[in-house]
Amino acid sequence: MKATFTETASDGGARCGLVRTPRGEFATPVFMPVGTRGAVKHLTSADLETLGAQVVLANTYHLMLRPGAEIVAGLGGIHGFADWHRHVLTDSGGYQIFSLSPDIDDSGATFKSTYDGSSHVLTPERAVEVQALIGADIQMVLDVCPSSVADTAVVRRAVDLTSRWAAKGREAFLDHPDAASRQCQFGIVHGGTDEMLRAESAEQIVGLGFDGYAVGGLSVGEDRSSMLHGLDSCMGILPADQPRYFMGLGDPIGIVESVARGVDMFDCVLPTRLARHGTILTDEGRYNLRRAEFAASNEPIDPTWEASPASRWSRGYLRHLLAVKEPTAARVITLHNVGWLLRFMDRMTDAIRAGQFDSFRAEVNEIWS
Amino acid sequence: MKATFTETASDGGARCGLVRTPRGEFATPVFMPVGTRGAVKHLTSADLETLGAQVVLANTYHLMLRPGAEIVAGLGGIHGFADWHRHVLTDSGGYQIFSLSPDIDDSGATFKSTYDGSSHVLTPERAVEVQALIGADIQMVLDVCPSSVADTAVVRRAVDLTSRWAAKGREAFLDHPDAASRQCQFGIVHGGTDEMLRAESAEQIVGLGFDGYAVGGLSVGEDRSSMLHGLDSCMGILPADQPRYFMGLGDPIGIVESVARGVDMFDCVLPTRLARHGTILTDEGRYNLRRAEFAASNEPIDPTWEASPASRWSRGYLRHLLAVKEPTAARVITLHNVGWLLRFMDRMTDAIRAGQFDSFRAEVNEIWS
Repeated sequence: MKATFTETASDGGARCGLVRTPRGEFATPVFMPVGTRGAVKHLTSADLETLGAQVVLANTYHLMLRPGAEIVAGLGGIHGFADWHRHVLTDSGGYQIFSLSPDIDDSGATFKSTYDGSSHVLTPERAVEVQALIGADIQMVLDVCPSSVADTAVVRRAVDLTSRWAAKGREAFLDHPDAASRQCQFGIVHGGTDEMLRAESAEQIVGLGFDGYAVGGLSVGEDRSSMLHGLDSCMGILPADQPRYFMGLGDPIGIVESVARGVDMFDCVLPTRLARHGTILTDEGRYNLRRAEFAASNEPIDPTWEASPASRWSRGYLRHLLAVKEPTAARVITLHNVGWLLRFMDRMTDAIRAGQFDSFRAEVNEIWS
Repeated sequence: MKATFTETASDGGARCGLVRTPRGEFATPVFMPVGTRGAVKHLTSADLETLGAQVVLANTYHLMLRPGAEIVAGLGGIHGFADWHRHVLTDSGGYQIFSLSPDIDDSGATFKSTYDGSSHVLTPERAVEVQALIGADIQMVLDVCPSSVADTAVVRRAVDLTSRWAAKGREAFLDHPDAASRQCQFGIVHGGTDEMLRAESAEQIVGLGFDGYAVGGLSVGEDRSSMLHGLDSCMGILPADQPRYFMGLGDPIGIVESVARGVDMFDCVLPTRLARHGTILTDEGRYNLRRAEFAASNEPIDPTWEASPASRWSRGYLRHLLAVKEPTAARVITLHNVGWLLRFMDRMTDAIRAGQFDSFRAEVNEIWS
C-alpha cells in the first residue's frame, strides 16, 4: 500500500506530518531505534513503548539467518515475535551483505553468513519474500551499496543495478499474494555524492512507483557538506505526498539539516552504540561518562533533562557500573540516549509547528559542531 | 543495633516474621538478590522495587576496590549510590578474599586485587570500617572461609581464627563512632560439616553478642545431607529472637529444608547466573531455554506464572535473543528468575501461615530433586 504523507505543519523546507500505512499512522519527523536482531540492545518492547518510540527498525540480513524468516513468521511475524504492535521497518539486507564482499550478478548477491560461514543468495525477489515473512509494516527494496570511497564508474554501475533490482523487487512485491495488502515497500535512491547520478537514480526509482522513498548510500563516511550535497541532488524529485527516509543517519546536525531539506524518517545505531561506550547525549552536547572527573559526582547524567529515565542515578554510580562492566549501566544509558533522541525529534516538531525551526536549527548546529 | 526477630507465624520448625533494623522492617523468610558491584546484573533499583525485593546484598570486597568505599560514602552510602532505599546487607569480603589464596595471620588477610593486582589488607577492624563507609543496614563480620574440601585440622584452625576475628570485629563495630547506631552487625558460624566444630563455633559466636547470626561455610560443594547436618548442629544454639541467615544458598530444596530448620534469610547468585545461561525457574522445575525444541514455541517461558515479568514474550523469541547474545534476553530472564524466587518465598510464607508447610516442603522436594 502506498504510504501517504499528510503535512500538518511546515517551516521553510522542514515539515511535520503523519505517515499512514496499513498498520495506522506515525508522526514525523521520526527517529526509529534499531533493533537489529529483533530487540534494541538492552531494551524490550515494553521499554520502547514507555519511551514513546513509534517505529522500530529490524534487520532482514540478521533475522533471515537467525532465527530464520519462517520462524519469525510462525511466531506472528515481527510484531508477534517481539510483542511490539507499533510500526516496524525492515531494511533489505543490502547494506550488511555489501559489507561482506558478496559475489554480485544481475540476479542478486551471494554471500557467506557471519554466523556459520554458510552460503546464501539474496535476490530482489527473495528480499521481498523474506520481508513478507518477517512482516514489518515497511519493506525496503534490495539495493546495491558501493563502498563510500568508490569511484564514479563503480557508483554508476551501482545506480544502474540498483534500478534493475528495484524494478524486479517492485514487481515481486506487487505479485506477492498478500504483501501489498499489509505492507508498504520503499525504494532506495543511490548515486553517492554525485549530483547527476543521484538525480538520475531518484528519477528511475520514483518512476517505479514505490510506496515511499529512501536515500541510501549517504552518511557512510563522507563529510557532511558532501552528504548534504548528495541529499540536495535528489530531494526535489521525491514526491511530496509520500514519506522520505534518510537511511542510517542519527547525529543531531545531520538530522536537523536533513529535516530542513524535507526528510521525514531516520534510523541509526548511534544512540544505542554510544550508550554502551558511555557517551551521553544531552541538550548541551555529548560527553563521555567514563572520564575520571565524574567518579564522585552526585549529578544526574543529564542535568538538562529532568524526566530522563536515568535521572534517579548519579554520574558517579553509572560511571562505576560502566567501569566494572555491569550491564545495568548500558541499559540505563541506552534508555537515556534513545529517549533523548526521541525527545529531540519532538522538540524539532514543536519548533516547526511554532515557526521557530530556523532558531532550533541554528542552536543544534552551534551545540553539536 | 540488635536486629530483632518477631515471629508472626510458625509451622513446625519453620517460622515467618519481621526483622527489625535501624532502617525499618522486612518480612521473612526472605531471599536477597545479589548486587555484587552495586547492581544486580541487568537490573536497576527501580526494577527491584517493582519485583518486590526487600533486601539486596552488596559485596564489600568488590566495592572497596571499585569504586572504593570512600566514593560510595561520598555518594550517600550504598542506598544513595544505588538509589535503593530498602534494606542492604554487605558481606564481609571474607568469601572472595579466601578464593584468592591470601596470606593469613592473626591480624587479618593480605590479598591481591583481581582488578589490578595491587596488594590489600583486610582485618576484622578494617572490614567494619569499610562496611561502615558503604553504609549497608547489615554488616557481616570478617570470617575465615576454608576450602570445602579442607580436613578437620584446617577447619578447626578456621573456627578458632574466625572466633578471634569475630571478637575483634565486634569490638571495632561497637567502638565505631556511629556504625552501631545505624547498622546491625551479624556474626558468622563456621565449622564445615563437623557437628562438634559447628556447635563450638556457634557457642563462641553467640557468646560475643552479635545483632544477628549467619551460617557460613556451607553450600560450598558438599552434598545436601552433609550441609543440613552442619546446619542442624548449630541452629539450636542461635537465639530465637534474632534473625538467622544461611549465606550463599539459593536452590529451592536447600531453602525449604533450611526454613524447616528455622532459617530466615538467604542470598545466592543462582537466579541471576542461571538467567544469563538461559535456565528458567518455574513452579514445575527448571529447564534450559536454549534447547532447540523451543525455537518455534509461542508459549511464555513460565506457563505456571501468568504474572511473570517475562510473560508477554514467547519462548521462541527469548531463545532467539539468547542464541544471538542479545542482552535483552538476560534482562528479561533475570527479571523472571529473581521474581520467581521472591514469589517462591511468598508462597512458602503463605504455606507457613496456613499450617501447610509440610505439604509445600514435600512438593518442593519432589519437583526439584
